[in-house]
Amino acid sequence: MSKIITLTTDFGLADEYVGVMKGVILNIAPAAVIVDLCHAVDRHNLRYAAWLVGASWRYFPNGTIHLVVVDPGVGGNRRLILVRAGGHTFLAPDNGVLTPVIRDHFKAAFAVTNEEYFLNPVSSTFHGRDILAPVAARLAKGLAATAVGESLPREALAILDHAGARLVADRGTITGEILAADRFGNLLTNISAEQIGALVPADVTPVIRLKAAAIHGMVDAYCRVPAGEPLAIIGSRGFLEIAVNQGSAAGFTGARPGDPVVVCVGEA
Amino acid sequence: MSKIITLTTDFGLADEYVGVMKGVILNIAPAAVIVDLCHAVDRHNLRYAAWLVGASWRYFPNGTIHLVVVDPGVGGNRRLILVRAGGHTFLAPDNGVLTPVIRDHFKAAFAVTNEEYFLNPVSSTFHGRDILAPVAARLAKGLAATAVGESLPREALAILDHAGARLVADRGTITGEILAADRFGNLLTNISAEQIGALVPADVTPVIRLKAAAIHGMVDAYCRVPAGEPLAIIGSRGFLEIAVNQGSAAGFTGARPGDPVVVCVGEA
Amino acid sequence: MSKIITLTTDFGLADEYVGVMKGVILNIAPAAVIVDLCHAVDRHNLRYAAWLVGASWRYFPNGTIHLVVVDPGVGGNRRLILVRAGGHTFLAPDNGVLTPVIRDHFKAAFAVTNEEYFLNPVSSTFHGRDILAPVAARLAKGLAATAVGESLPREALAILDHAGARLVADRGTITGEILAADRFGNLLTNISAEQIGALVPADVTPVIRLKAAAIHGMVDAYCRVPAGEPLAIIGSRGFLEIAVNQGSAAGFTGARPGDPVVVCVGEA
Repeated sequence: MSKIITLTTDFGLADEYVGVMKGVILNIAPAAVIVDLCHAVDRHNLRYAAWLVGASWRYFPNGTIHLVVVDPGVGGNRRLILVRAGGHTFLAPDNGVLTPVIRDHFKAAFAVTNEEYFLNPVSSTFHGRDILAPVAARLAKGLAATAVGESLPREALAILDHAGARLVADRGTITGEILAADRFGNLLTNISAEQIGALVPADVTPVIRLKAAAIHGMVDAYCRVPAGEPLAIIGSRGFLEIAVNQGSAAGFTGARPGDPVVVCVGEA
Repeated sequence: MSKIITLTTDFGLADEYVGVMKGVILNIAPAAVIVDLCHAVDRHNLRYAAWLVGASWRYFPNGTIHLVVVDPGVGGNRRLILVRAGGHTFLAPDNGVLTPVIRDHFKAAFAVTNEEYFLNPVSSTFHGRDILAPVAARLAKGLAATAVGESLPREALAILDHAGARLVADRGTITGEILAADRFGNLLTNISAEQIGALVPADVTPVIRLKAAAIHGMVDAYCRVPAGEPLAIIGSRGFLEIAVNQGSAAGFTGARPGDPVVVCVGEA
Repeated sequence: MSKIITLTTDFGLADEYVGVMKGVILNIAPAAVIVDLCHAVDRHNLRYAAWLVGASWRYFPNGTIHLVVVDPGVGGNRRLILVRAGGHTFLAPDNGVLTPVIRDHFKAAFAVTNEEYFLNPVSSTFHGRDILAPVAARLAKGLAATAVGESLPREALAILDHAGARLVADRGTITGEILAADRFGNLLTNISAEQIGALVPADVTPVIRLKAAAIHGMVDAYCRVPAGEPLAIIGSRGFLEIAVNQGSAAGFTGARPGDPVVVCVGEA
């Protein structure tokens, strides 16, 4: 059984929150291997966290436990859940942050309610430390998922609306959105390689529209266009990205998270 | 015996300093488990580092070794110390950065002087790498604390003045200060839940004053007040925090580290 | 055999890139110990990354595998290489980022071409994840360096020009450059302690010139000068650094990466 636990949060690394969660885990499961997946999710940005986890979990070994703590409702009555999907285990608030995992790979879910596995006392503001971390540690030591609480049907779980891009085949478009800009100013979209493959015939040059920019065709490497020129590429996560060779697409286009991106075929 | 070593520094993660310390540790103790507690302490901010370590060490297993490198006097004649407290081991400069640990949990202390355990040569600017990291690694491998240097009485150790808040019961106030703002703009204070419990009867609504803001009463979850409203809450570390639901208390109040915070009872 | 793998990239920690590389490594080599050396190299800054790796690898155990992913040419026809040097193994693009290691410690090199050890498919934009991480993991599990591809002579490898400072003994100068500023505003140069030792007799006070500043003599600790005063010191990496005691040399001098620094002897 794998003892890997990944952490994805919107805590940042400026405070000791992440380090303390690791202490809690190692206190219970000294042999756990803890991997920081990302702690720089914008505060409370469920859509981006959901996409990021959905694009990343596959790279970890079967049986990995993924802790996702983006939790605007902490202390309120939102539920904490354990989801089994794709041979992996996910622990998170039931707020949609596991949307792609639940939508595409759902196997089982459980409410995380068995206080026997929590820290005591449980604070009202840091359930990542007091509930999810100790439960993850116990799962890493072999606790059965069924022990954390009662089973939940897939229909009971929160799912984000419009978490994916929309392919409208008869209009020849895919409409998605900018999810985030990375450190290099590359713009990440929620339009998948599969959607583009389904819309765009091999002999057709699509047009990608974002703000005032219209990019004709796609490339397979940044260096296929001159330095400073924009390009469209299937990024390393399997989704459309807008980039500028040796530059910043965020700066070039002025686009921000939430802005629409459209892939079109058949334009004059 | 635990082989966990935590690292708390003001080095940031922009350079290789932290990574190199880990190399030094693993070179001596290949089985050590190294956990980053925090590397974003403001440069030379001993008060905040002391408070952060004091609020965090308990979450790690008994026997953990905590390395704290906030060291404005490096290269001068300040001492390096090993402190045993609460079943844990702390290594740090003798500059007050271990104040809460020494004040509340002291068991023994030793000067770190035995050069046999240092890197050779020792630089004048990076004792974290050249002295504290190799000593921590040797402790993780079983070296006795008594081997690092001579015993020091508690009275010989540096303690920061006014590291805690002051409770003045007959005036009905606790006066503390803002220690830091976290990534979300939550303002951390040095006023503990125990102090508030000692001052404020269960049926009394305290008033918390910070800059121009007066917050009436305390809540147990951010979502108890409308979005954008300020609130006072016992944070996850067991200390009073000032927050704004889905907003920034630092922005709302304009408060900065060092600003006074007062909890009052019995006001008209 | 050591199972330590260090990671040096220009990815930053805002995205999941680094975490995903760790997943790929642990999927193949579950016992690998992964250490972040630095992920904050300025984008595509090969000179700084080369210097940083050259100053750091020695602190890790013999046999450590160092992954260096600063890769402006990804997706183009630049080569990926494995270099054996100083008892360690380095994996990187063949773009000069291993210059100090190759120049001073070269033992053998191999082209990384054996696709049997790559992820499948290989993306065009993230060879760190798809090629270098899985190859590093297999090396950590015992794969021979000779298995990754054909041997390369040292002369075939890319070397950065002027990666070191120039000592001109008959003019009494060493001319180097500012490589970077650290978090504290300390200015790192590429002038080594050895070069200064070769130029400056023990009884001579050198002058260090940077922008408008002229610093007379060197010190062995920041606190040797008053707070706010500039100083020259051999930093903890064994290279000349310009600092300001309890201040920022970057702010004080206005110097930026690439600016020349001159050490002179024999001035009037």
